[in-house]
Formats: sequence, structure tokens, C-alpha cells
Amino acid sequence: MTHTRAVETSALRWLAPPAGPAVVLLDQTGLPAEEAYLTCRDVSSLEDAIRRLVVRGAPLLGVAGAYGVALAAYRGDDVAAAASRLSGARPTAVNLSWGCARALAAYQAAQDGAGPVSAPSMDSERSAARACLAEARAIAAEDAAASAAIAAHGLALVPERARILTHCNTGALVSAGEGTAFAIILAAHRAGQLARLWVGETRPLLQGARLTAYEAARAGIPHAVLADSAAASLMAAGEVDLVLTGADRIAADGSVANKVGTYGLAVLAKHHGVPFVVAAPVSTIDFAASGAGAITVEQRPGREVTSFAGKAVAPAGSGAYNPAFDVTEASLVTALVTEHGITQPVNTGTLQDLGTTRETGVGALSDVSVER
Amino acid sequence: MTHTRAVETSALRWLAPPAGPAVVLLDQTGLPAEEAYLTCRDVSSLEDAIRRLVVRGAPLLGVAGAYGVALAAYRGDDVAAAASRLSGARPTAVNLSWGCARALAAYQAAQDGAGPVSAPSMDSERSAARACLAEARAIAAEDAAASAAIAAHGLALVPERARILTHCNTGALVSAGEGTAFAIILAAHRAGQLARLWVGETRPLLQGARLTAYEAARAGIPHAVLADSAAASLMAAGEVDLVLTGADRIAADGSVANKVGTYGLAVLAKHHGVPFVVAAPVSTIDFAASGAGAITVEQRPGREVTSFAGKAVAPAGSGAYNPAFDVTEASLVTALVTEHGITQPVNTGTLQDLGTTRETGVGALSDVSVER
Repeated sequence: MTHTRAVETSALRWLAPPAGPAVVLLDQTGLPAEEAYLTCRDVSSLEDAIRRLVVRGAPLLGVAGAYGVALAAYRGDDVAAAASRLSGARPTAVNLSWGCARALAAYQAAQDGAGPVSAPSMDSERSAARACLAEARAIAAEDAAASAAIAAHGLALVPERARILTHCNTGALVSAGEGTAFAIILAAHRAGQLARLWVGETRPLLQGARLTAYEAARAGIPHAVLADSAAASLMAAGEVDLVLTGADRIAADGSVANKVGTYGLAVLAKHHGVPFVVAAPVSTIDFAASGAGAITVEQRPGREVTSFAGKAVAPAGSGAYNPAFDVTEASLVTALVTEHGITQPVNTGTLQDLGTTRETGVGALSDVSVER
Repeated sequence: MTHTRAVETSALRWLAPPAGPAVVLLDQTGLPAEEAYLTCRDVSSLEDAIRRLVVRGAPLLGVAGAYGVALAAYRGDDVAAAASRLSGARPTAVNLSWGCARALAAYQAAQDGAGPVSAPSMDSERSAARACLAEARAIAAEDAAASAAIAAHGLALVPERARILTHCNTGALVSAGEGTAFAIILAAHRAGQLARLWVGETRPLLQGARLTAYEAARAGIPHAVLADSAAASLMAAGEVDLVLTGADRIAADGSVANKVGTYGLAVLAKHHGVPFVVAAPVSTIDFAASGAGAITVEQRPGREVTSFAGKAVAPAGSGAYNPAFDVTEASLVTALVTEHGITQPVNTGTLQDLGTTRETGVGALSDVSVER
């Protein structure tokens, strides 16, 4: 069941021949008003869908990239070129290029395994495509398993009757499982530990209001949406026990790139003595990025800010500053939850061990020093 | 000229009989797409316009309230009841009740001056109404003068080639003059001291994107609009030299109630060592409010957050937290600029003197201690 769910999540599924090959995406840009599906039959339409945020969220982008490479292999396209194009569609989320690279490596290994031939046979092409698809499915299954492990580990950090503030969207829509931060929130809700979820609307594209509130409503979680700028006074009023977000890329020093606004919440959390916790699979960690400076922050079109639903909300001549992400330094991160356990980037100094160790020895926020 | 401008600002003007009596408002809810005017011929339509933010901004609400009381007097309504109703339309902006009270007092003084009569004569009613209107015009003229003085004082705090971040809308649309914080920004632009204006969009009603960007564009100020949540990374990147906002109510201890999001900017400014300056006329100071706890923060309808231009952006069942304002403690305010000069609430401990002294002895931000 878990395995089936993992590869057949409603946000993304593989459509096999003869109806396919295709990657079918829930179009997240129309939610919550419309639940429409987009069938991508070639790499270029998938690349466009990734750019337009039809499919989004770090873990799911890894899955989507891998399925996109499999799509190219099934179509007989240039698989390496497809992997390269898909990897570049969103520059900040490291999972995307990681998923593409894994699927490409599986494809190439299967080709190599077929032995040296002057021209690839139809059979070797077909078996390499199958290997590529199997790798995409494995990535999805691993992501679902990571999601469950993150939920189990993270639950230990949630106080009784917690009022949790989250930002952007980190649930089943961004994962082959139940997500990252939202998986912990769901676990807390099921355990009776969640009093209220505060949902930052997440401008400019409102992933909080549109998607997280949609997932919270479906799960029966008591929640309220707020303008991102209302979080500060909410914390000052003592209404937030924990700030919990996902991540799009984590540098080796623990710097966290995530949806724009996350860094401000981290500063505000520190000012108010509220723990700031990040949940992400290890695949989100970019060990090649030494720190914040090595993370490319994607700049999105200004019209996302200056217009809304096609209607201008600023004068035609106004410029815009619209970074998709910001970077939070490790010193502001109270704890990082991965599928391997809980760690404190600022204390460990490096995240290298996370790739190999299974547990990191931190069991609850009381074990984690929070500067108040 | 100044006087004419003061009472005939495009945002609000008095329409005398026989075409009136009426208060004509530029409908700010439709800007920048539509420049429509609303003619309020009775107190109830003006009260509704104030609630719906057709007219808004602390200084202009004082003017609008006073004209509303004059409207009641010209119509022969119960003037005290009108003043009371108008005062309650927006609970946080102290200027509104202050303007209503001044106009009512002028009306009552004129009635009393007409001598004790068993039933007020037509003549005494007419002259009391004229006194009430004269008081409204005086409030507008004083506001225009205060605006010019604030601009002159505040300019001393603007560094060369300044990149200023502002929030909400504080220009001619909220004032009988050029505004508060925006008047300083305009002065800096004219003096060649302004490199760039960063305009926080100001969710949920986008007064920054819709109104401040509109005023900046008309004035030829280089500017860019950003999601409120992008301010943090902008400060971290060293792109902000000064945060400059207005105020809706200032308590006697220097606590500043202003548009929601202001408090978060103040915390972020402190974290990044950026000066946080508030500009407001002395009429914004509520000496009866001892501190933050004495300021009522208006809660606005949740649909302002959960829908946009009539279109739902969150599920129907989602709750919302939508305070219109937040309160910034005096310790986060680097300097307060009024028409009387520049002061540091956290150092003076009280703002009482501001009502009487003309200069407060602080000439530039270099004289103001900024914790970095």
C-alpha cells in the first residue's frame, strides 16, 4: 500500500504505454478552486510545468525530474540532454537535479551493462528505459519512507497542545509521501498534540493559503490563514509555540534556503524565543554548497508581485523585487529533522554525518538549546 | 496656495451647498486601476466609506472625521451622535476620534457663544455649522503644515544615496499635505538623496503596491514593489539603509501602532542594524494610552485574507487571523519624527513634551544611537 501510494500520489503519476508514456501532474496553480490534471507527454511540456509551478516542492521535484528522464528514455530522446534541461528548470531546489542525475545514472548503467555495441540495440534501449523508470519509482518510494521517518522523528519536538506556525506548502502535494514539515504536523494532529496550525499565506503565490490550508482542511486540522506580515505580532502575543518549515536546499554548513519569508520568520522566532525547526529529507542537503553564498536564489518574474490573477495591483511602470527563496543561517535553526533523526546544524558544524548515521541523538526540543 | 491645497486635496474635499453639503472622497479601494470619486451626502455613507477604507490613513481620517461632523451640522442632524458614530468607525487610528472631537467642540462652543436660548435659532445653528466647517478646514490646514514640517525635519535622517524601505501608504492620499513618511521620501527625492524606494506591498489590502507605488510612480521616484516577506533577505543583503513608516496611534510610552507588518520590520531592522524611523503628526499621539496594552487593535474581516478581488484563495472552511495593525515597542524605534522635530521615545521615556516643545534637539541619525 505504501509503495503503491508512493508512486501513485495524486500530485504526480506515471502513465505507462500504450496510454503513455507520460507524467500526469495535478495542476497546483489552480488549487484550491480547480483540481485539474496536466498530462506531460514530452520533456519540454514537463519542463514548462516545473517552471510554472504546476508541480513544485523540493522532494516532489526530485521525483518529477527522475520521471521526466524516464519519459525521455521511453520516447527515445537524448536522455542526457533531457536530464540537463530538466535540472535547470528551477535552480534552487537541489532535489530536482539530484533526481535527474540518479535517473540518468541508472539509464547509463543499464546501457553499459548491455555491453559494448556499435549501435544500441532496440532491446538495450528498452531495458535502459525500464531501469530509468525503476529508479524514478525507487526515488518516490524512498521519499515516501523518508517522509514517514521525518514525521516520527519530528513528533518528538512538538509540545503538548502546540500552536505551530508554518510557511509555504510541505505536505502530500510536494512529496511521494505525506511531506516534510506537514508530515510532522499531521502526526501531531493524529497524536492529539496539535491545538492549532497557523498558516502563513506565503506571498506572492499563496502556497500557504491555497495549498496548505487545503491540505489542513482535508485533514480536519484546526487552522487559520494569516498574512505573512501578521506572524510577528502573533509571536509577540505568545500564540506560537513552534515555527516549522521545509527546505528547498540546505548547504553543508546548515544554511537553509526555503520559500521567501522563511528567513524573516527565523529572525522573529529567535527574537521571541520560539523554536525554529526545519524538516527535510537528506536529499535536500547539497554537500557541494559550503554555505549560503553557494546557493543560487531563483528570481521569479516581477508580475507575480505586481499583478494578481491577471489583474494589475501596482502601476504598469513599477519595478519588482521577487526572489523565490531566502537563506537562513544555521545559527537561527533550532533543529533540523531528516529521515535519519534530529540534529542541530549550528552545534554540529557540518551535516556530513547525516548521510551515513541513522540517529543523531537529539530526542526532544528540551535537549535542544533554544536561545530565549 | 498651500491653504487651498490643504482643504482641496484630491483624496478628500468639501462640497458646499447648494451642490452640497457633502464630503467627496477619492475611492482608494479602486486605485490604481480606477480613479473614482464617492460623494457622501450623509454621515452614514461617510461612516461606511471609512469602514470600507475608501478613505484611510491616520492624518486624513482626522480631517475626514471633522468634515463628517460639519456635514451633520449642515444637515441639521444630531451632531454629537454623528461625532460618536464616526469616531467608532475605525478603533485604532486616534486621529479620527480626535478630529471628530475638535469639530464637535467648535460646534458646541459656537452654540454656547450664541447665548442661552430655549430652542436654538436657525441663525445660531447656521453659525455653529459654519464654525464646525471652519474647524475642519483648520485641521486640514494644520495637517498640511505638519506634513511639510515632518518632511523638513525627517530629511536630516536620510543618508546620501539612501535606499529606503517603507510599508503601507503614507503620502498625499492619507493627508491634507504630502503625508508623513512619504513626505520625507519625497523631500529626499527632490534633494537628490534617494537612490531607491523599496515598497512593501502591504498585505492583505496591498496599500503599498496599489497606493504607494502609484504615488512613487507619479513622483518619478525609482522604486520596486516586494512581498512583505522579502524584506528580511533584502536587509540581510545590505540593500536597505533606512526603514521609514507612518503610525496610526502612538502611546504615551512611545509604542507605535501601525499597519500590520510594521512590528516585524522593526524587529528585522534591529537584527540587521538598520535604523527604524516613524513619522507622524503629534495628533497621532494618544497621551491617554499609557502603553501598548492600552491600544485597541482592529480585527478586520477574514475574507480580506482568504479571498482576493472576490475570488477565494483559501478553502471555504479555513479560518483567518487578520489584525489591521500591530504594535512596536519604543525600544525598537530609532527615532520618531513629528512636526516639532525628532525624538527618541526609548530615551525620553515620555512623549508629553512633544505637545509643547518646538524642537527636540536631534539633528541626524548620527546623533541617534542605533544598536547594530
